Amino acid sequence: MKESGIGSQKIIQRKRDGELEYLPDELTIEEPLEIRVGHNPIATTMRTPGHDEELAAGFLLSEGIVRARDQIASVSVGGDNRVVVKLGDGVKLKLNSTKRFGTISSSCGLCGKTSIDAIRQNFPAIPPADIRIDIETLLSLPEALRNAQSDFTRTGGIHAAGIFGMDGKLKIAREDIGRHNAVDKAVGRAFLDQLLPLESYLLLVSGRASFEIIQKALAAGIPIVAAVSAPSSLAVELARDSNQTLIGFLRPPTFNVYTHIERVILDSG
Amino acid sequence: MKESGIGSQKIIQRKRDGELEYLPDELTIEEPLEIRVGHNPIATTMRTPGHDEELAAGFLLSEGIVRARDQIASVSVGGDNRVVVKLGDGVKLKLNSTKRFGTISSSCGLCGKTSIDAIRQNFPAIPPADIRIDIETLLSLPEALRNAQSDFTRTGGIHAAGIFGMDGKLKIAREDIGRHNAVDKAVGRAFLDQLLPLESYLLLVSGRASFEIIQKALAAGIPIVAAVSAPSSLAVELARDSNQTLIGFLRPPTFNVYTHIERVILDSG
Repeated sequence: MKESGIGSQKIIQRKRDGELEYLPDELTIEEPLEIRVGHNPIATTMRTPGHDEELAAGFLLSEGIVRARDQIASVSVGGDNRVVVKLGDGVKLKLNSTKRFGTISSSCGLCGKTSIDAIRQNFPAIPPADIRIDIETLLSLPEALRNAQSDFTRTGGIHAAGIFGMDGKLKIAREDIGRHNAVDKAVGRAFLDQLLPLESYLLLVSGRASFEIIQKALAAGIPIVAAVSAPSSLAVELARDSNQTLIGFLRPPTFNVYTHIERVILDSG
Repeated sequence: MKESGIGSQKIIQRKRDGELEYLPDELTIEEPLEIRVGHNPIATTMRTPGHDEELAAGFLLSEGIVRARDQIASVSVGGDNRVVVKLGDGVKLKLNSTKRFGTISSSCGLCGKTSIDAIRQNFPAIPPADIRIDIETLLSLPEALRNAQSDFTRTGGIHAAGIFGMDGKLKIAREDIGRHNAVDKAVGRAFLDQLLPLESYLLLVSGRASFEIIQKALAAGIPIVAAVSAPSSLAVELARDSNQTLIGFLRPPTFNVYTHIERVILDSG
């Protein structure tokens, strides 16, 4: 397990002039992480090593397995790509939740879910509050996130998630080979630090906005989600229902607003 | 369920001159699909609707649940985001396999698996054979795949996978919001058509090459995998061990070769 998230090796590169050359190359490290709750393996995810305790905390939060900080007694990271979460006294692992990951033995082994209702964790919608961001601040965020990223520029193969205040100040930034993992790590850090709900913060992701990204933001109480690339149809649907502002294709000077534009200050100029 | 994979709605767009405008926008459709084997729900994946029977077949193949075409008796697609696979007479569903899956997000081919050992399916390495591609043909593939893609140019939010012959002719192209799903659909089509092993074909993916992409290609017997973006460390490791040629950052006129360069004809000019 390499904490840096980068490994290097020799590759052969074809250059613009057609010449072939042996070069050192840096690769994003991808390794499996097993997440356990006590003795129960809950899920295995392919992730970039590092910040594994945050990844586990964020994952359990966004899957509705824990809802409050004191429901986690401890998180311990092993050297063998395993992280073990101990729940607080009296906190039970709900079978319903774990069945979705296939760990509870039963006749069928697994409970697949077909409906959106079953995938939805039913987090409450964002309560009404006067949280707004102005356009100039919004436009400054992608560059701020890139500046905080160490690995991407080197490997071209890593995603980033950033949690920003309405003043554009970066609170937490995390990177991972998986978009969802980067969000789990950032949200997990905030959760472990008892910063939830993140009701006056914005989540920016470096790639696309899927349903799960919006749901993870919702689990953390984040009212505004921005993505550098496209949102999916289901992401827009969930954001609309959850009173979340969803911004896509945030590529200064342009962006799209898909839901709840009232949180974007239009007359800031 | 919309077969086209595209939905439309009104958005607010900030233009380059700072003006805001209401515009129609097209979004990539993302919906859950439950894959059942007989009465057993095996997994739920977030996918772009369409080609669901191929997705199911490709998924079962790359997870080692089926290995030969005649192990699948039928695949039927329901209107309720469910696909049911009936195994052939005498083919048993190994519970070991099914216990590893839960809900799979569109970006993660592995989320939901619960044991690290379970990740490698131990498909045999590609047998030695004189399959080679010349550089000019290789450089022509990204454009050929883009030309075959209908949805990406409209939504900017969809991945593609293409199976090409050594002459650069496109055999099968599929799109999905998830990279892994696009590969499952393309490989699943070939599997259902009894074209496996695809020993004289190349797989091109529009995004990054993860471990799972290499493993899915290996399940189909594909000796060369090319990706428009970066490979991960584990992808390179598996490709090396499996006698697969792995090409990354295929962005004409440049590309990188990570493993088994002997399949790239260097003196074609």
